[in-house]
Amino acid sequence: MNVVNVELAERSYPIFVGAGLREQLDALLGEYLKDRSVFLVTDSNLEKLYLESVAGKLSAVSHSVHTCVFPAGETSKQLSTIEMICRKGVKAGLDRRSVFIALGGGVCGDMTGFSAAIYMRGTRFVQLPTSLLAMVDSSVGGKTGVDLPEGKNLIGAFFQPEAVVIDTDFLKTLPARELSCGYAELIKTAVILDGTLFDMLEKHARDLLNLADAERVSEAVSRCCALKARIVSADEKESSLRAILNYGHTFGHAIESVTGYSLVEHGEGVAIGMCVAAELAVSLGLISGETAARQESLLKTFALPVSIPAGYSAEAIFKAMGTDKKNSGGRLKLILPEEIGRAGIYTDVPVEKIMNAIRKRIGK
Amino acid sequence: MNVVNVELAERSYPIFVGAGLREQLDALLGEYLKDRSVFLVTDSNLEKLYLESVAGKLSAVSHSVHTCVFPAGETSKQLSTIEMICRKGVKAGLDRRSVFIALGGGVCGDMTGFSAAIYMRGTRFVQLPTSLLAMVDSSVGGKTGVDLPEGKNLIGAFFQPEAVVIDTDFLKTLPARELSCGYAELIKTAVILDGTLFDMLEKHARDLLNLADAERVSEAVSRCCALKARIVSADEKESSLRAILNYGHTFGHAIESVTGYSLVEHGEGVAIGMCVAAELAVSLGLISGETAARQESLLKTFALPVSIPAGYSAEAIFKAMGTDKKNSGGRLKLILPEEIGRAGIYTDVPVEKIMNAIRKRIGK
Repeated sequence: MNVVNVELAERSYPIFVGAGLREQLDALLGEYLKDRSVFLVTDSNLEKLYLESVAGKLSAVSHSVHTCVFPAGETSKQLSTIEMICRKGVKAGLDRRSVFIALGGGVCGDMTGFSAAIYMRGTRFVQLPTSLLAMVDSSVGGKTGVDLPEGKNLIGAFFQPEAVVIDTDFLKTLPARELSCGYAELIKTAVILDGTLFDMLEKHARDLLNLADAERVSEAVSRCCALKARIVSADEKESSLRAILNYGHTFGHAIESVTGYSLVEHGEGVAIGMCVAAELAVSLGLISGETAARQESLLKTFALPVSIPAGYSAEAIFKAMGTDKKNSGGRLKLILPEEIGRAGIYTDVPVEKIMNAIRKRIGK
Repeated sequence: MNVVNVELAERSYPIFVGAGLREQLDALLGEYLKDRSVFLVTDSNLEKLYLESVAGKLSAVSHSVHTCVFPAGETSKQLSTIEMICRKGVKAGLDRRSVFIALGGGVCGDMTGFSAAIYMRGTRFVQLPTSLLAMVDSSVGGKTGVDLPEGKNLIGAFFQPEAVVIDTDFLKTLPARELSCGYAELIKTAVILDGTLFDMLEKHARDLLNLADAERVSEAVSRCCALKARIVSADEKESSLRAILNYGHTFGHAIESVTGYSLVEHGEGVAIGMCVAAELAVSLGLISGETAARQESLLKTFALPVSIPAGYSAEAIFKAMGTDKKNSGGRLKLILPEEIGRAGIYTDVPVEKIMNAIRKRIGK
């Protein structure tokens, strides 16, 4: 088992990473849960696979376990589901000492965390991420929230969990496409922060994608969490440094948005967004064409898309970038690679250069 | 003008108190607002009275002013209104640097503050309270939120404003019953924290209730804010000390709840709750009957009710106290007076004593 500590003063917490950790929930969380009520929240897919066994483990070590299931899918990620979760919590008699536990992917973690953040103005939160994206992305940073019809994650809170338990065995039941999406986040983190992690991903791509080497998967996940934790510790509320983690996201969100959030998964949007950003970085002379090609090649190896679906206009994508909440004071903030392992924040990129980079990646 | 500073480290903020301050909004907030967009939120009653003039003042000193009006009344205080406010904010192009300004009473402040807390995971918030209760209660403490069908304020956040501007002239258009409700909060604060404020309220009751002496009203409001600020500074998240401010509230909320949130206003519930608490304190030998009578007399002078409406059972009220979120771990926490100017927290009061105190105040 690997342990990553996310250092955030009095809100610091551990991330436990390893294969089969859900069998050790009693040992890992028992002391913390022993006189608390647990509110285990999951979606309708994971309910069938894991709810009973996880609830059983938690029952053995907590005051009581209550469960809540919402319909699987991003369309559940809205305020009405938050209201349902909280009302169910009230009916179960949960108070501020209770612990909300998210058993699921990013949607589940975002909603359970947000519910915990606002339930009686704040209770406790533990994450059991089941998707690779949730393991490496949602587990560090405390970003929680829901979507509005106008855009994703427009409502939410920064709310840190008390602990995260990552059982990489959950990945065995994850659909292949979602597994690839998780690797997009790993590749993104490597490109902006750690060239040696990028090398490792290149070298062991097959084993990682096939989950053939549990040790290697755990290592990749914990290295990614540790890198992200370092950034978040230094800039919890995303005032500056943390923005670097949005590499690929400004373009990615816009692509997800114009394609109606159905054609392109979040991780795929990020993968395409990274390719657009690299295209732009090449045109600005920040990186070589070879570096951009190396990133593109690794994304392809992990079965990720590298171009915008044909039929969408650069204008529409550019416009959709405007409502991304990372843009403050009306200026577009772009994260661009400077080499494999390093990226920078750029705010004065000429619009025409951005448009050209988008155009070059449409239907490629 | 009086200024009360609420000391909360990097979240400290000033409260400006005085007659006619809404005419000085440009001077008070101009420097802060000059390159920010303002989102001015109010209810359908205050819209007619003040929205245009306040928006005009703010327009002169900010980047832009957008407005949002919701239907007046506690029934608006729900998540669907928060969603409406936030969606309107997105459509207006507001970002994380924008400032949400609440022009209104407690409902408006609670909802605007909560919207600001969760809009893009947190923007800015300024309060212009128009009711006496909002001036002395909501202006200090950062409690924001909405109701659920299961109970009041069950969803929310602790979120501090950047500044509060209290123009006591707003009280001139406040209905008499609401003015009395505000004074209930002042009397409550005096009973638990400051005997000399209680003396002052006794001595100048008529002038305060008639708003005949603007200086005196400002003094009472700022003294109450300062007392509350001292407590909140020491215990922002209500882990212990701050609970003292809930004097009258546990009984009060239960009375509001069983009477269906229509018969009894919040301030009236608190007034009645204080009488129940005093009754209980007398029976426990904490205070004399004379002290309880003095509190009751002052509440009556300010046209406040001092007994539970006839026809409701003590059992129902006691049961309703159980879902009050201030009760952690299943133990009922009661705030009881120890003299005029001092109160304590009690967790082991025999149920029969509580029931008797409730019974004694029904239909009295």
